[in-house]
Amino acid sequence: MDLNDGFHVYDTTLRDGAQQEGLNLSVADKLTIARHLDDLGVGYIEGGWPGANPKDTEFFRRARDELDLRHARLAAFGATRRAGVAAADDPLVAALRDSGAGVVTLVAKSHDRHVDLALRTTLEENLAMVRDTVTHLREEGQEVFLDAEHFFDGYRANRDYALEVLRTAYDAGASVVALCDTNGGMLPGWVADVVHDVVGTTGVRVGIHCHNDTGCAVANTLAAVDAGASHVQGTINGYGERTGNADLVSVVANLELKLDRTVLPAGLLRDATRVAHAVADVTNVPPAGRQPYVGTSAFTHKAGLHASAIKVDPDLYQHMDPAGVGNDMRLLVSDMAGRASVELKGRELGFDLAGDPELVTRVTARVKELESRGHTFEAADASFELLLLEEVDGVRPAYFDVESWRVITETRPGEEALSEATVKLRAEGVRYVVTGEGNGPVNALDQALREAIGQAFPEVAKFELIDYKVRILDQGHGTDAVTRVLIETTDGVSSWVTVGVGANVIEASWGALVDGMTYGLRRHGA
Amino acid sequence: MDLNDGFHVYDTTLRDGAQQEGLNLSVADKLTIARHLDDLGVGYIEGGWPGANPKDTEFFRRARDELDLRHARLAAFGATRRAGVAAADDPLVAALRDSGAGVVTLVAKSHDRHVDLALRTTLEENLAMVRDTVTHLREEGQEVFLDAEHFFDGYRANRDYALEVLRTAYDAGASVVALCDTNGGMLPGWVADVVHDVVGTTGVRVGIHCHNDTGCAVANTLAAVDAGASHVQGTINGYGERTGNADLVSVVANLELKLDRTVLPAGLLRDATRVAHAVADVTNVPPAGRQPYVGTSAFTHKAGLHASAIKVDPDLYQHMDPAGVGNDMRLLVSDMAGRASVELKGRELGFDLAGDPELVTRVTARVKELESRGHTFEAADASFELLLLEEVDGVRPAYFDVESWRVITETRPGEEALSEATVKLRAEGVRYVVTGEGNGPVNALDQALREAIGQAFPEVAKFELIDYKVRILDQGHGTDAVTRVLIETTDGVSSWVTVGVGANVIEASWGALVDGMTYGLRRHGA
Repeated sequence: MDLNDGFHVYDTTLRDGAQQEGLNLSVADKLTIARHLDDLGVGYIEGGWPGANPKDTEFFRRARDELDLRHARLAAFGATRRAGVAAADDPLVAALRDSGAGVVTLVAKSHDRHVDLALRTTLEENLAMVRDTVTHLREEGQEVFLDAEHFFDGYRANRDYALEVLRTAYDAGASVVALCDTNGGMLPGWVADVVHDVVGTTGVRVGIHCHNDTGCAVANTLAAVDAGASHVQGTINGYGERTGNADLVSVVANLELKLDRTVLPAGLLRDATRVAHAVADVTNVPPAGRQPYVGTSAFTHKAGLHASAIKVDPDLYQHMDPAGVGNDMRLLVSDMAGRASVELKGRELGFDLAGDPELVTRVTARVKELESRGHTFEAADASFELLLLEEVDGVRPAYFDVESWRVITETRPGEEALSEATVKLRAEGVRYVVTGEGNGPVNALDQALREAIGQAFPEVAKFELIDYKVRILDQGHGTDAVTRVLIETTDGVSSWVTVGVGANVIEASWGALVDGMTYGLRRHGA
Repeated sequence: MDLNDGFHVYDTTLRDGAQQEGLNLSVADKLTIARHLDDLGVGYIEGGWPGANPKDTEFFRRARDELDLRHARLAAFGATRRAGVAAADDPLVAALRDSGAGVVTLVAKSHDRHVDLALRTTLEENLAMVRDTVTHLREEGQEVFLDAEHFFDGYRANRDYALEVLRTAYDAGASVVALCDTNGGMLPGWVADVVHDVVGTTGVRVGIHCHNDTGCAVANTLAAVDAGASHVQGTINGYGERTGNADLVSVVANLELKLDRTVLPAGLLRDATRVAHAVADVTNVPPAGRQPYVGTSAFTHKAGLHASAIKVDPDLYQHMDPAGVGNDMRLLVSDMAGRASVELKGRELGFDLAGDPELVTRVTARVKELESRGHTFEAADASFELLLLEEVDGVRPAYFDVESWRVITETRPGEEALSEATVKLRAEGVRYVVTGEGNGPVNALDQALREAIGQAFPEVAKFELIDYKVRILDQGHGTDAVTRVLIETTDGVSSWVTVGVGANVIEASWGALVDGMTYGLRRHGA
């Protein structure tokens, strides 16, 4: 049986999600995201507005050749025909018909004032535009959904007309009418009442499209489903204009894990965390750590109070097993965590500290002291392990001894800036003086450092710096503030994160680079 | 009449909010946040756990001398007496009694398994601990609230015992029992049912404390209020462990603006956006642009479709007047905005572009081209204005002509790194060669640049760089990626944001610095 027969999970990340401030997707980005969405098993992927937006036209063209979807169907989004033009003669309607998606989601006005002031036509002509466009597209073999824009506000202003728009679309052959809280001002009880009335009065199949302006997009969506909606629209990571759309992963996880409804193909929800993060990599919007279900902090425990009790029974402190959405429980080493967390973190890294309370005291004290100066070991596991080894062995692991470093960045008008770094260090008894160039000062330092130690330790050739994050810790003082740098290094198989802190961003970066190389050399048995 | 008689707005940013990953508050930070919360008019500010946490003990000590709250009362958070010890003899209970706050919020177990496995005592002793501690604190003149930890899970596991804990606290003199969804797994309908039962069965005054693990913290809180709760707990910006606590501003804005309940002193909700951002400045957690009500994107319109209709009637596209929470409508210049947005943005900046469609075309095309290379004009209004002026006048405003610049950062073991920049430029017909030092390369460049142009334009002495943000645009390539820098400059009265982009972070920073100085000089009539 086709899961879509009973319930639609309809993703609009590529269309409504792309309206988010700061979010810009290329056609290649959109194709990549569509593949991730298909991995998650959503029923429909709204790809954009072909005909109105050249990038979206191109997306549908390339999707025909390049996308091989296993679960999802593509939907093309667009408007009803223009006033006074036959649907068959409107080139924008033709672009929808010919997109190759097979599903068209038509946006239509259902609020009388919007028809008057924004569309500038009569209420009768708007109904005719809905009727003609749906009829034409159905005759051309398309499945048609209707997005009733500003429906909830329209329902309040003129219930009869808002319902008439829905009936018109349904009678013309639309298989779903999605009620859109376009301005996002609804609360769950109100949504439930309206959906209940629509389902009872009209008998149409109802969908729901919520925005998060009251902080209730997920709850509003669930309230609509409870009242009879069987088609939910949303976006990955809740992307969208203003406060965003309903977060589709939260909606689906609540439906499947809390309300025992099957809305995705079996087992695919376990890919949710990976998909949410992979999409964030493409959009380049930093993922929200606090995001429900998939956030890096969503199953993270910090308080010392909790950490000691988690040793007894993790289920007492989690609302569900994080594996259900592909996430993990994490424990943080931080200045609030206390001894129990340091002990548990040590165990995660393979050190049994339970038998050495004095060591735990020393490590906890050093963590607190360093964190008060701007370090963070919550993210930088590798730097924490180096600190732990230093306390266990009495000396910090070191494979090279730095004498000095220097980096110069300069430019002339019309030329690209160039950075050049010189590093002097000793390794395995030999002194190395190496100069590296780069397109930035840290890049140049990284080149010089790796070339210098690489002469003593050839395994360094495998190491690559794959992520570099800068955080100004003391905002309000511009460039004259403490800076924290997190660096992620890979050996091609796994990766590790190190931290550096300093008033000088270059010095902070250098500290993280040195830790990254040291940790990698130790892991490779140097 | 005291607003708190009818309804409690109870903030726990300083206690439960501080459990958030990456969030560390000093005592001075906590005092500053408490003042902001008081400006917002919350009824109670939970300051921390005196006795258990030295920082919190210090907070309450300093609060007595330094805080002069107009609206809020402080509350001290802590646990019931230990098993087997009289409440009067427990030093942690004494620390609560003596905090000076006058209100004590006692956390108690209400889930039978937690009593057994985490507290390791009997169900009877747990009830006695609640009874004795509340009685003792009431006798000592304290107002007492009870936080019933893990209440909703406990209610499911053993309803009778969970209710017995509430009754015990209430009979002993607690004025509120707050039901805590500590693990955050609840949905609104479930919360409503439980609160309804508790209110009906026990007659106690009920509070609600929600976490956002299902994405429903705000809706769960509203559902509890609808079912009879009259005390809401939450945090500013939704800070908190895992996915965070209920965002108190969203809760309060929904209650006041959507549900017509008066829960804050008149007019103070209009300070919400300022308070939310001021608290984010203290916590140094970057504010979420998409945050309901107070986010910088919350009333921001990007789509060209909307922008043209907004010219007709803004109320059609907003769920409320943003002034109600001290926020503003914003229009974005971006590659999706199209001509209507550029025109509106020009009008915001004082340029009437409506009469020159060809100019609008040129500006729109340049914005698109630059944004495709990594610029963003959404945040950088000053850079957009310079671009607009360049297209209006045919030449970009320029007050100085840069010949070259160079910056060196170097260090030796045991010494702090030092940066030194040399800038060569011409201004007002004179050539300047100036060297500046700084604790980082951009700081050194900023010093040298300002000193050089300051000799020609003395007004530059007033300019100060107050914020510096770095974003790696092409993650996954470490330091070898395109970097975007946003710089905020102030003249002591207002501030402006400029953008720079480049493969080299120093070059990107330089571009933003030069734009920042140029914009400031133009504003000051150079």
